[in-house]
Amino acid sequence: MLSEEQLDLVHEHAMRILEEVGLDILEEGARRRLAEAGQEVDGVRVSFDRGFVMEQVAKAPEVFTLRARNAERSVEIGLGRRTHWMPVGGPAFANDLDEGRRSGRIADHDALVKLAQVAPELSILNGGTVEPQDLDHRTRHMDADYSVIRWSDKPYMTYGANGRKTLDGIELAAIVHGGRASIEAEPVLMTVVNSISPLVWDERMLEVITVSAQANQPIVMTPFLLAGSTAPVPIAGGLAQQVAEALSGVAIAQLVRPGVACMYGSFFTPVDMRTGSPAFGMPQAVLGILAGAQIARRYGLPYRGGGGLASGNSLDAQSTAETAMSLWATALACTDVVLHAAGWLEGGLTASFEKLAFDLDLLRFLEAIRRGIGFTDEELAFDAVKQTGPAGLFLDYPLLWSLDYESRRISIYDLERRDAKPGSVSVKTIPDDAPIYGLTGVPGEDLLIVTGGHRTVWMESENGWQCLLNRTPSGSQPPVARAALNSLYLLDRDANQIVAYDLEGRNP
Amino acid sequence: MLSEEQLDLVHEHAMRILEEVGLDILEEGARRRLAEAGQEVDGVRVSFDRGFVMEQVAKAPEVFTLRARNAERSVEIGLGRRTHWMPVGGPAFANDLDEGRRSGRIADHDALVKLAQVAPELSILNGGTVEPQDLDHRTRHMDADYSVIRWSDKPYMTYGANGRKTLDGIELAAIVHGGRASIEAEPVLMTVVNSISPLVWDERMLEVITVSAQANQPIVMTPFLLAGSTAPVPIAGGLAQQVAEALSGVAIAQLVRPGVACMYGSFFTPVDMRTGSPAFGMPQAVLGILAGAQIARRYGLPYRGGGGLASGNSLDAQSTAETAMSLWATALACTDVVLHAAGWLEGGLTASFEKLAFDLDLLRFLEAIRRGIGFTDEELAFDAVKQTGPAGLFLDYPLLWSLDYESRRISIYDLERRDAKPGSVSVKTIPDDAPIYGLTGVPGEDLLIVTGGHRTVWMESENGWQCLLNRTPSGSQPPVARAALNSLYLLDRDANQIVAYDLEGRNP
Repeated sequence: MLSEEQLDLVHEHAMRILEEVGLDILEEGARRRLAEAGQEVDGVRVSFDRGFVMEQVAKAPEVFTLRARNAERSVEIGLGRRTHWMPVGGPAFANDLDEGRRSGRIADHDALVKLAQVAPELSILNGGTVEPQDLDHRTRHMDADYSVIRWSDKPYMTYGANGRKTLDGIELAAIVHGGRASIEAEPVLMTVVNSISPLVWDERMLEVITVSAQANQPIVMTPFLLAGSTAPVPIAGGLAQQVAEALSGVAIAQLVRPGVACMYGSFFTPVDMRTGSPAFGMPQAVLGILAGAQIARRYGLPYRGGGGLASGNSLDAQSTAETAMSLWATALACTDVVLHAAGWLEGGLTASFEKLAFDLDLLRFLEAIRRGIGFTDEELAFDAVKQTGPAGLFLDYPLLWSLDYESRRISIYDLERRDAKPGSVSVKTIPDDAPIYGLTGVPGEDLLIVTGGHRTVWMESENGWQCLLNRTPSGSQPPVARAALNSLYLLDRDANQIVAYDLEGRNP
Repeated sequence: MLSEEQLDLVHEHAMRILEEVGLDILEEGARRRLAEAGQEVDGVRVSFDRGFVMEQVAKAPEVFTLRARNAERSVEIGLGRRTHWMPVGGPAFANDLDEGRRSGRIADHDALVKLAQVAPELSILNGGTVEPQDLDHRTRHMDADYSVIRWSDKPYMTYGANGRKTLDGIELAAIVHGGRASIEAEPVLMTVVNSISPLVWDERMLEVITVSAQANQPIVMTPFLLAGSTAPVPIAGGLAQQVAEALSGVAIAQLVRPGVACMYGSFFTPVDMRTGSPAFGMPQAVLGILAGAQIARRYGLPYRGGGGLASGNSLDAQSTAETAMSLWATALACTDVVLHAAGWLEGGLTASFEKLAFDLDLLRFLEAIRRGIGFTDEELAFDAVKQTGPAGLFLDYPLLWSLDYESRRISIYDLERRDAKPGSVSVKTIPDDAPIYGLTGVPGEDLLIVTGGHRTVWMESENGWQCLLNRTPSGSQPPVARAALNSLYLLDRDANQIVAYDLEGRNP
């Protein structure tokens, strides 16, 4: 999107910010290391030399591997080869149809982790996907990480809000991954740090950088830029500031441990000037996501950016528009790692179960687009066209039909038996006498068969099953008469189970 | 998106369909002209020679101008230079919060035309933006075109469902545009024709092509492809069939009048195999929109494709996701003309006033992205960053603030005084004592000042003003505390007026 000349302009302005304005570095150890490396320190203010910064940045790898306990789920991160979507992280509240909006609990955390584990769209998890406020704040960071370790075998990002907590997370990971030496050799968790924009690295974040770098765990350097508040209103200025903040963080990390993986992070969104609060899913953010990816690649760093970000308070047209716009840009940018890709609601205050399910559908959509169009002879379908001919109908051309629609099976997963092999999974088949336009639910059965409108989300409540998304105005067609639902994730609280319905019969 | 090799494959397969399968041409005059041009005719089946087809296609212009009565609103169409968004066309039903879903009426048609006229995002209108079912079906096509002529000065597409009706539309246009010779010299309306896929041009559509070409009015050749029903399931096969159908239509038109403008039309979407009904806003459609644009440009034809298409029945998360995905692809493809860009609901059965307002916001969003990022010194903002410095706040940097937020004025438009100059337009200013987080409405006033959540849509009903989109779950923040609303279109039925609120003070 940006020309080489524009990338040069952003770089030049970022370097001038580093040299002529500098950053406040609020932790003594980091300042000392910078001074020893020849940087000019005046009180807490550090002026960075551009040659030094670029030299440090060059030490960080373009690609790295994050190891999972299940080796098949280890991920390679970098060069835009694959976009790794993550669930929402950090909200204070949880929300679902059963209980509404409430303070996050460890039970919600467990449930979100289980959902993320069964969702094939999500390849990296979060310790702290919702804040478990029912636990002691001094130790809940370990409960959150343990929740991920207990209920998932995917790689993850540690809770890590300060140095001590990050170190606890690293030690937990070391226990399950064969010890400290093992995880230093092959990194197993990520940490995310935010500069205090504009142009401050505070003590907590610098401690996180230090302990993460010492343990050789990848660090996501994410300036927290709100255009009009913590960054200039114009996008170009925000990008220059972003580069200055992110690259200074990379340099600080490389001084601790040369070669530690560092990602270029973008969290860039305008604020509503009337309220001062972030306005997510706006055009400025879309442009920032796309430009950020180019900038990250210019510096040879993997890119974290975008997400399913929205300001909307409920799963409605507003939040969906914001989310869809943000996710499209994220996918187009071939972003390497995406925090908050599913389940983010209310400006990040809330982790929504319903929105998580809905966002997973959007992610499937984007991955299908990324796969693109096939051009085999069968897909070019000349024989089908010739055989069908003018005024024919392709509905009765079985070979092609079978390409997209394999079966009507529903698969049910029991997360308590996470190691279940396909053969041991209970499967229910949709009854043959189901209405032709879809498969209706039968309230009262222990397991409900649901179907209906494309992207419909159903949730179980006291009053039976409710269709959450497909609010049908009176007089219009029932939602079951529309389109296909590919899969559906439900949380069965009574049974403490995740049930994943897959109408195409694929195993999640 | 497609490689040259893939484009060649689509072309080759399309040419084989034209030559080896052929099309049914159900109107005698068109068959005769094709036979005279050397094409092989067997009953109604015509085999097209590829050399002949490509020769005809080459006669159609890459760019053409569609003249509006107001010369400033004339549009240039082609080469992806600008995307011309149009409102929904053809629904049988209208829907709004006041009256719910009902058969379309001429009053609804007038109201939609007025909204489209004041919306700066829409540059071409529709005769038949909703079906005026309260009028005699033998003459309502003229009422629909007259509605556009009466309430708008933008260029438009005629209702034109068959040759006679298209001719009536052309004659109406001739009356207001200085006579038949004048519109033949400078085209003023478009017609859209759909082949009866697969591979049939029926009598009605061929008549439309004939009378449009005779009058030198641009024709949008749009195969109606439903993958799995009227086209093969695989996208590549659908594209080959699309080329065969669209280019055969172009050839037929060029035989009537060489040089008449013809657009390459794409309407390509999968069907839900369980229902047989189209599933809009799906990945296959997104890929089809993007590929279609490349194909159209290969043949040197302006491109019609995409739209704000959705299967959803109400303005909710489902319909918004489908719409946003479809519109993103449409914008990315630099589509020249977009039918159904705003107001389409329920698979096209319904023209929704609320969704029209909402979709306009999405179109503004996409246009803002198309404008991209500015890189002036002011936008690179080095001075702002230096002056603000570490730990500062950009809220008090007035120069930059003013770049995005000009004023808090609200402009009110009275469509009855369509010729009003900016000076004669009544303007209300938002009171200075409005809450800082937004501007609350005061029910009971003759004109309500509304504001609040970004992309909130408010409609007036019997019970006063209702916030339509921003359904806030209990316990969460009020929607007014969120983000910016740029503009808002409301329909005041009592006063028979459109009121357009523009919170940025720009004149629509």
